[in-house]
Amino acid sequence: MKIDGKAYRTIWAGADGRSAEIIDQTLLPHQFKIVRMTTPEEAAHAIRAMQVRGAPLIGATAAYGMALAMLRDATDAGLEAASALLLATRPTAVNLRWALQHMEAVLRKLTPPERAGAAFAEAAAICDEDVEICRMIGVHGLELIKEIAARKDGGPVNILTHCNAGWLATVDWGTAISPIYHAHNAGIDVHVWVDETRPRNQGASLTAYELGEHGVAHHVIVDNAGGHLMQRGLVDLCIVGTDRTAANGDVANKIGTYLKALAAKDNGVPFYVALPSPTIDWSCMDGMTIPIEQRDAAEVTHIPGALEDGSTATVRLTPAGSPARNDAFDVTPARLVSGLITERGVCAASHEGLLSLFPEERQT
Amino acid sequence: MKIDGKAYRTIWAGADGRSAEIIDQTLLPHQFKIVRMTTPEEAAHAIRAMQVRGAPLIGATAAYGMALAMLRDATDAGLEAASALLLATRPTAVNLRWALQHMEAVLRKLTPPERAGAAFAEAAAICDEDVEICRMIGVHGLELIKEIAARKDGGPVNILTHCNAGWLATVDWGTAISPIYHAHNAGIDVHVWVDETRPRNQGASLTAYELGEHGVAHHVIVDNAGGHLMQRGLVDLCIVGTDRTAANGDVANKIGTYLKALAAKDNGVPFYVALPSPTIDWSCMDGMTIPIEQRDAAEVTHIPGALEDGSTATVRLTPAGSPARNDAFDVTPARLVSGLITERGVCAASHEGLLSLFPEERQT
Repeated sequence: MKIDGKAYRTIWAGADGRSAEIIDQTLLPHQFKIVRMTTPEEAAHAIRAMQVRGAPLIGATAAYGMALAMLRDATDAGLEAASALLLATRPTAVNLRWALQHMEAVLRKLTPPERAGAAFAEAAAICDEDVEICRMIGVHGLELIKEIAARKDGGPVNILTHCNAGWLATVDWGTAISPIYHAHNAGIDVHVWVDETRPRNQGASLTAYELGEHGVAHHVIVDNAGGHLMQRGLVDLCIVGTDRTAANGDVANKIGTYLKALAAKDNGVPFYVALPSPTIDWSCMDGMTIPIEQRDAAEVTHIPGALEDGSTATVRLTPAGSPARNDAFDVTPARLVSGLITERGVCAASHEGLLSLFPEERQT
Repeated sequence: MKIDGKAYRTIWAGADGRSAEIIDQTLLPHQFKIVRMTTPEEAAHAIRAMQVRGAPLIGATAAYGMALAMLRDATDAGLEAASALLLATRPTAVNLRWALQHMEAVLRKLTPPERAGAAFAEAAAICDEDVEICRMIGVHGLELIKEIAARKDGGPVNILTHCNAGWLATVDWGTAISPIYHAHNAGIDVHVWVDETRPRNQGASLTAYELGEHGVAHHVIVDNAGGHLMQRGLVDLCIVGTDRTAANGDVANKIGTYLKALAAKDNGVPFYVALPSPTIDWSCMDGMTIPIEQRDAAEVTHIPGALEDGSTATVRLTPAGSPARNDAFDVTPARLVSGLITERGVCAASHEGLLSLFPEERQT
């Protein structure tokens, strides 16, 4: 999508064919900086330091990391070392593991001299595939927005989202935000309520930034405000992303998603979850069994931001002696979810609903 | 309650009989500073600059402001000028208006030479009355905590609260936190989940500070976390305060309260609201008609905190071009409230429930 009028993806091959480039997302929204990577170590650093984040983008970065490794050492030993290096950056990321295994499988079949060129081509293909999945989520989600726009007596379609499931979390388009970009590009009047999404504030920093740069109307709100806005009829639709979708339609997503789903249910506001099918965990029939990551309490007690002179600083919010607890995700039960938006279409948040779109997963 | 081992109120007469002292709450939790006030202008500044906040404490500060004014000019003109000065600080604060009208009525009956002494005595009486109301809220609320403690198989009683309805918002004890102090002082094992309460973070700053200083176990959490903790059985009870209680039991309180009430209902967690009876608006039979204050968007886009060197700074959280919306309160419908804790006892969140404790309000 666009930044300052120019179309970008979150990762792309360098023009010299020997590098890959990313946007350093740790500096957003206060600074826009492109980072050029020429070694697998730099790709590993980008993942570990969270210059790139979001499952699809992490996978794509790892794929380019393998390509960069092949430029230097295209032997089997080089392949294995690079894969191990990149896997260790975020060992629980499913997309990361998948991308590395895929790259290894493709490259092993080739002779070392063929590997670098093939690796760049395969990394680009992984990116293109992600873009196509996200684009199709947008195409299907757009229909929901169109229906609401047709029912409304003028005024914007007000959509609430949580965290960042936008193009910055993927290669392009995003998941939850893809339908919004499609609506905006189609000339539909949309306005987004952006939950700031404490503690890491991915909404206030990344979602607000990408919407603003692409020209989509929005307001940042505190995470406390969504229920009130729904009570007052100011939200027509909620769309959020998900980190893992259970096969029964329960969704694990950024902490606070459950509270918004409760408010949507209480006020008759449709609550949709957008997801690429690789996030469906077909082996999990109960979302409450998904393990919830406990993160550093410092993310709650401290927050980074920009000082008036444009430099950045981190401030402590709490008394020095007060401990904090930091659960990263919560689980929204399927009963609160109006539907799931996937690259194959929209379905009910249930095992049957998911199987209707993915019949190949039906156990015979 | 205690700060660093010593018992305080939030406001008290100076030992010289010609001043009043407060804690500058704008500096908490990063700095503890007592401010001595000797003129009505200083009292007005304390209210306007929010060195004191919370309806009862604002009223008490205004009362002392009148006493300070009588030291300088005890004529009727002096009385009227001081009252007008103090009322203009927070014109919508009901307690402020009540305290000023009460002081004026008491003082007008006296000759000017009698007025300063009487004003200090009356301000002290207003404070003592507030302390007694808050103490009784604690006495009644303590029974709810005792019942839960008796049912539990050991481990602390986990109580979630939102915003600051502690002793710093009153003269002493607080409203929602008074039952917790009573339980702690009675030796019951209590642990508090403190919602940080964006955007002004009164939970992370004031509630965490006062609980820590009094020695009550607690963790600060982001506002997004409460629903997840309730889902996991980690919350036994919610107690919050209220800015205005409708006569049908609906409660207007800090933005986000409604979301926690929804989660409590969904998980069978008791959700109580503590209130001094002056916050009941007997003329309002529908909480959704209570006007909701829209505050400065800068409270959402910027946040103050402490830098590593101990100095304080304000950082911007959002992209420079992103607007924000800042609704200060929301309304929690009575159907989500397990009960109201007042100085006269605990009742159902309904008109009949309130009338059972306040029969004098029944229309004959």
